[in-house]
Order: sequence, then structure tokens, then C-alpha cells
Amino acid sequence: MKDIIQIREVGLRDGLQLSKTKLSTETKIKWLKQQFKSGFREIEVTSFVPPTILPQFNDATKIVYEANKIQNFLPSVLVPNLKGGLVALDNKSKKINFVLSASEMHNKSNVNATIQKSLSMFKDLIIERDNRGLKNDVIISASIATSFGCSIQGKVEQNKLIEICEKLILMGANELNIADTVGYANPKQVNQIFKNLLQISGNIPVAAHFHDTRGMGLANVKSAIDQGIKRFDASLGGLGGCPYAPGATGNIATEDCVYMIESMGFHTGIDLIKLLNLRKSLAKWMIKDTLYGNLLNAGLTKTNN
Amino acid sequence: MKDIIQIREVGLRDGLQLSKTKLSTETKIKWLKQQFKSGFREIEVTSFVPPTILPQFNDATKIVYEANKIQNFLPSVLVPNLKGGLVALDNKSKKINFVLSASEMHNKSNVNATIQKSLSMFKDLIIERDNRGLKNDVIISASIATSFGCSIQGKVEQNKLIEICEKLILMGANELNIADTVGYANPKQVNQIFKNLLQISGNIPVAAHFHDTRGMGLANVKSAIDQGIKRFDASLGGLGGCPYAPGATGNIATEDCVYMIESMGFHTGIDLIKLLNLRKSLAKWMIKDTLYGNLLNAGLTKTNN
Repeated sequence: MKDIIQIREVGLRDGLQLSKTKLSTETKIKWLKQQFKSGFREIEVTSFVPPTILPQFNDATKIVYEANKIQNFLPSVLVPNLKGGLVALDNKSKKINFVLSASEMHNKSNVNATIQKSLSMFKDLIIERDNRGLKNDVIISASIATSFGCSIQGKVEQNKLIEICEKLILMGANELNIADTVGYANPKQVNQIFKNLLQISGNIPVAAHFHDTRGMGLANVKSAIDQGIKRFDASLGGLGGCPYAPGATGNIATEDCVYMIESMGFHTGIDLIKLLNLRKSLAKWMIKDTLYGNLLNAGLTKTNN
Repeated sequence: MKDIIQIREVGLRDGLQLSKTKLSTETKIKWLKQQFKSGFREIEVTSFVPPTILPQFNDATKIVYEANKIQNFLPSVLVPNLKGGLVALDNKSKKINFVLSASEMHNKSNVNATIQKSLSMFKDLIIERDNRGLKNDVIISASIATSFGCSIQGKVEQNKLIEICEKLILMGANELNIADTVGYANPKQVNQIFKNLLQISGNIPVAAHFHDTRGMGLANVKSAIDQGIKRFDASLGGLGGCPYAPGATGNIATEDCVYMIESMGFHTGIDLIKLLNLRKSLAKWMIKDTLYGNLLNAGLTKTNN
């Protein structure tokens, strides 16, 4: 029996955060339903952030409502602070990804808080969930941005990342999502960081979120797999980008990531033919944006057709 | 002291083989000189093939003549058969890459010979070089195309590849270059194949030639490095393509490959700033072709500036 590796689509959140095209709510729902049908069991469907800052997510309530109707499906939402987390709870979100950064300067820039303040809000969100009697119903994951380096402050000390993760685990995080937000990670560093992280994470699942900003996205996935990581984020068509490098590529492309992982003999549960068909639709929807990913043009091989 | 990994530029041969733009001899020489200045010590500069088939290499003699003038530089040439090999010897080539395929059907399609015939020609080329008293002056490398799978016949048995390599070593090959011509390799397979190959290669250096056809190029480089491979082919701007998949990406992009390998703490001897400047020139020269590689748009990071 093949080992399972889970790929979580984040295009509807990370991909749309910087996109030039604004998708209608209907198209977003069509996208998430088709992606579910191609085998994805977890999709980051939206973000509970102030609409004044990111108006493209002003339909978050509607999206979560529709996503919650799908059976055997885990829609997750991103929140940048306690307030967003409470709105997510109010909206019956099944999984909440609370984002904070390993870089103090990035955290300030991204969520306008010190890391200490973010950690304190994370703890309050866990407490609030538990007080509402939702401990077994709502998963709270911590997404640690700029874990491999920061385009504002530069180097991020690994000790700092580990320390933050230890605190998040003590506070009751149900998952850690280690993110290379700005494409600084290299495969050697990925090996080292996950090796050390897995020594302290115990039973808490650890996911990896890589960007392909400098072309190393899938090489980093390979390195993380070598260390035992079984959960990866990816964005269909590599939709996204990097806020600090105009014109640069964004998240790793879901289709290429799935293809590599399946080729390596793991089971993702994803139907690549269906996924590539959705990828073609995405190109029609995102008319103002450049999409990436090599598999669509190359096609599958004779050995895996 | 850092371990050294050598990257060999193949854009002037593999990259130009399928390109829409035809470069003048002058531009080719400018390209190779600038690439030499950015730190490359080996470049595949051209191919000795019938000009009726590949007219873009009808200046091969001139290119080799100019390349041979550069000190401390190893220009290599590709040849598809004994005839090409003899012309390469006549032209004082310092290194000859003799190409044959691990796939019988690809060998037939690519060089119009059985594998047995290609092996026999390889042996004759070695004998001819030695008879000319050039054993210590001319390196003869064997490039084994479709080593990881074939777009014509599909699966290529690893035993077949190993058997071919064993024969090439017995015949006196000075290097083995294991090529994923059509982008079929995945990181797990790369691990396995190089692990087994290195058990039989003894003192013969083994190089890897990956294409990024399905996005796994750099992940495969990472896997090969894990097994101890220290020589890689790459093409500036990912120039190239795949003859069997129109629109698909070709070789791994040199600049991204160098960047990843340097990030991992190895020494390539390459000045990335100079290389990226050349990459910008290449975009101006290859006006009809799509170039790839993520580093140019993203730029270097704060931690390696």
C-alpha cells in the first residue's frame, strides 16, 4: 500500500490575494467544487481579513457557507489575528489557519503586531474555541510565515522559529504549517529545519508551504518528503506571486506538485486528468494573470498514462 | 572548504537545437565568451551533425576554433555517431560527447542506429582517438539519452541502462552523462538510478542532464546531489524545449540551477550577477523563443546578496 501525502489547495486564498483578476463568488465556488471533485479533501477557501484591506475576500462568509455544504470536505480559512479568528468561528469554519511570522519585521508588516502579540492572540483563539465547546469540531492550525528567511529583515534564525513552534504547540495548536512566504528556502535548509522541527512536534502534524519564487519549490518539497513531511500546500497554476518581487512566481503549482509526488510512488487521491481540466478553466477565468506549472503543456508521460 | 559542483552550460547546443531564433556565429561566440567570464569552465559549444539535418550548427568548425583559443576552458561538442566524432577529432575538439539512447526506439529515431551499432561506433571512436595519439588530450564522454524513460517506447528498464553504461566503461568512456531527454525522471527514480550506477562507475565521473519538462528538474538535481553526483548540465534561460511535446519547457535553467546549488552551500565558481546579465542579453538575442527560469524576475535574496 502506498504512503499517503496530502496536498492542500491554497489558490483560492494565497493565489487570489495578489491576483489582478477579481473572481466572482460564483466562479470561486465553481473552482472549489471542481477541485473537490478532482480529489482534494482540504482547500483553503478564503481569508477572514478586513474587506478594506483585501476586498477580494469580502465574500468569505458566503464561500464558507457554500463550502460547508460539501460532505467529506475540510474547507480551511486563513485569519491574521484574533478578530478574524472569532469571525471564522462565528461562520462555522471547520479549520482555521492563524498566520504569524517567524520574522519580527514581517509580522509587523503583515499583521501589524509583534510576534508576542500574535502568539497571545493565538492562545486566546484556542481558549475561545474551547469555551464555545468546539474543541473537537474546529481545527486550529498555526501558519508560520517567513520561516526560511524574510525579504524585509533577511535571515531568520532557526532557533527563533523552533521557539515559536514550541510555544504554539504548548498553546494547543492542532497543526503547524511552515511557510516559505518569500521563496528563500533551499533544499538543504529544508532538510535541517524539518529534521529539527519534527523532534519537537510530537503528535502535531507539520505541513509545508513552499513558493517557487526562485525555482526551488519542488526541490524543497522533495527535501521535506525526505524528512517525513506528508502535508503540502500548493496553488493551481502557481497562481499568486510575491509581494516583494513584482513579476516573480508565487506558490508551487498544484498540478506539478501532485504529479511529482505521484511519480515518486505516493498516493495523493487526486485525479490528474480532472485537475488539468480545471487548470484549463482557471486560465480562462484568470485572464489578467500569468499562470505557471509545466505539466499542462508537457502532458502526462507514456509511463503514467 | 566547500564541496565543488560543476555546472556545464549546454544552451549553445541543446538550447539552440530546437530554437526558433537562429543565432549568428558572432553572437554564439559572444555568448560563450561571456559565459566563460561568468565562471563556467566547461560549455557544450556546438554539435558536429550533418548541416542538412541541423543547419544551425553549420558553423561548428568556426565555433570550436574560437572556443579553443580560450585558456583554461574545456569546450565540448556533441556527436551522434562515429563520423561526427572523427570530424570533431579533425577539428581538435578537447571533449567529445557521444550521444546514444538507453531506449532502442529513441536511438533509432535520434541517431538512426541500433544501440549495438552506436556502442560499436563509440568503441571505434575511442580506438581512433588513441591511434591518433590523443588519449590524454581528448576526453570522450558518453551521453545516454532517455535514461529515465522514453516518449516513444515508454518505460526504459534500469537494467538496460546499467548494462549500456557497463559496456561504455569497458570501452574506455571518460565520463558518463545520464540524460533525462524528455523529462520523465522523478526524484525517487533519480535516487535509485544514480545509487546503482555509482556502484559500477568506479573512477569514471558521472554527470546528470535533466530537463524541466514536467517541473521536476531541480528536484531531480537535488536527488542526484544526495547520491553524490557533482556534475550537471543546464541551459541558460531553460532554452530548449522537448521535440515530443510542443510548448513544453526544456532543459533546467542554468541560473536557477546555479542558484540552488550555491544556496545549498556548494561552490560552483560562478558569478551569478554576471550570469544574470548574460541571461538578459540572451533574452534580447532569442527574440522568437520563450525563456524560462525564475531567478531573473525574483532577484537574489537579502541573505545571499
